[in-house]
Amino acid sequence: MRLSDKGELALVEALGRRFTKKVPGVVLGIGDDAAVVRPRGGNLLLTTDMMVEGVHFDPAWITPFQLGFKLVSVNVSDIYAMGGRPEYLLLDFAAPGDFDAKHFESFFRGLEEASKLYRLSLVGGDMSSADRIILSATVIGSAAKFVTRSGARPGDLIYVTGCLGDAACGLLILKKIGRPVEVEKGKRTGCGPGWATVGPLIRKHVMPLAKKPGSFLKSATSMMDISDGLFIDLTRLCKESGTGAKIFYEKIPLSDELREASAFWGMSAIDLATGGGEDYELLFTAPRDAKVGAICIGEITKRGLCTVDEKGNTKKISARGYQHFAI
Amino acid sequence: MRLSDKGELALVEALGRRFTKKVPGVVLGIGDDAAVVRPRGGNLLLTTDMMVEGVHFDPAWITPFQLGFKLVSVNVSDIYAMGGRPEYLLLDFAAPGDFDAKHFESFFRGLEEASKLYRLSLVGGDMSSADRIILSATVIGSAAKFVTRSGARPGDLIYVTGCLGDAACGLLILKKIGRPVEVEKGKRTGCGPGWATVGPLIRKHVMPLAKKPGSFLKSATSMMDISDGLFIDLTRLCKESGTGAKIFYEKIPLSDELREASAFWGMSAIDLATGGGEDYELLFTAPRDAKVGAICIGEITKRGLCTVDEKGNTKKISARGYQHFAI
Repeated sequence: MRLSDKGELALVEALGRRFTKKVPGVVLGIGDDAAVVRPRGGNLLLTTDMMVEGVHFDPAWITPFQLGFKLVSVNVSDIYAMGGRPEYLLLDFAAPGDFDAKHFESFFRGLEEASKLYRLSLVGGDMSSADRIILSATVIGSAAKFVTRSGARPGDLIYVTGCLGDAACGLLILKKIGRPVEVEKGKRTGCGPGWATVGPLIRKHVMPLAKKPGSFLKSATSMMDISDGLFIDLTRLCKESGTGAKIFYEKIPLSDELREASAFWGMSAIDLATGGGEDYELLFTAPRDAKVGAICIGEITKRGLCTVDEKGNTKKISARGYQHFAI
Repeated sequence: MRLSDKGELALVEALGRRFTKKVPGVVLGIGDDAAVVRPRGGNLLLTTDMMVEGVHFDPAWITPFQLGFKLVSVNVSDIYAMGGRPEYLLLDFAAPGDFDAKHFESFFRGLEEASKLYRLSLVGGDMSSADRIILSATVIGSAAKFVTRSGARPGDLIYVTGCLGDAACGLLILKKIGRPVEVEKGKRTGCGPGWATVGPLIRKHVMPLAKKPGSFLKSATSMMDISDGLFIDLTRLCKESGTGAKIFYEKIPLSDELREASAFWGMSAIDLATGGGEDYELLFTAPRDAKVGAICIGEITKRGLCTVDEKGNTKKISARGYQHFAI
């Protein structure tokens, strides 16, 4: 069964029945010209992210379920990175007419699972045919108080919420394996240093979890999520704050799995951690005296971006990481 | 100069400077993880539409300026069709790295012109490289009271806000001309029955104006915009309302330009008006006794969809119009 055997109207109707349940705040869901919602009061947060086949992902190494899950996570991550609470989801979906209806169903199961996890509701969207999969999601959230990228002050400490580089390493491993691994169904694959090592890395790439800020939210002076790579995202945060930064090189958290996989394949774990994207950990700053349950990796300075190692050697940071339209 | 000579960061920064002006309600615009806004109270309306090169448009007959303008119009039309007021715009933009920076600039000028016209603000988005132009816009609006597709009742009269079929005819003419016509710069082109006839038809296709509901809004029982074609959209409205409809065939408004162009090229004006999409006129219903400044084309019945001509001949309506994933 292909999508073209069903037709747009039938597909949209089925989604309407499936996702338009009685959710507090949703006045009118899928099926009209626009969705109607009544968000919680305070500030409304708006974010959108696009995922295009051949640019952001390759069906050769990600399943439709994972794709649906990831699309939601990367958007929710932006809301969390502002200190907000995700509420509503809009989806633009395009695929070829001969796209397998089973894959379509899997995609929406992944999207549904992530939506439940983050407690947000699909309320509308647009569906279209195209010669490849094109996805765009918009998440609407709310926040009583929000945290921007621009509030870091010299003397603040710099934190991350988890290990870096895993997602980038997971992608390299998937490229070696050359086919998707259905981690969501408990599928394992023998590869290199073994499943206990590669499994978590692959999962971090295909089904990333958006990190919800913990109790540190109240003391955070600036915050963003690491989507393009630590160094490029830190550069952005410092630019917005008008500051510099010093990163304690050895403090950058690397998982055991990343160390093992890197050693096995002769990759540089630290390069993956500083230049690899899609970790979706939070990067934030807080005053030196704040109690923060996260990993301190450096401090905000007046100007310049550098790393410093245990011996005190400093090295200038170049904003490595993924940038579209860069040569 | 190509986009890849500039890079994503520089492009986003330039857009941030350009669009992030002091607008009431916009707390934080382009440049952070999410935009922060404070919409007017009441109901929040959410809509999104995608435009993909080769599916929804062809650069062979639409200029980047027109594309930017149209993208905003089609989204605003959905907000107007609910009786709402557009407020904020999010944009996902993808194009090839060798996309001409001049075209990029033209696209944003078109988007800006439409945004000013409808008084809405670009507050965020996502930018990406791809092998073709992919656009997705989300518009957030507000409404004290909104009108759905589901409120039509038997006996209500059916109205449209303007002539139908012009946009579809304009597209056919552009395909004959085989190149874009810069109507926004006052460019004219000699073609068939002459510019006075083809100009308005072309403009209706490449730079449609979203129709803001007039004073009839207070008496409208159901409403939607005509984006896929009168018959398919009427079918949707009736399905949602649980009603039928009778359309007075001769009352369907046809412009003089459509009649002339159709006669010249031997096309069927009425087929274009009933099956052609992208007119973005409003289709709505109101009680028989309401005073309505719009064109009455029929009445809501209990069941069945048909047309009736002046001689009283009835004919069943088949839901013609554009549907993705339809064979």
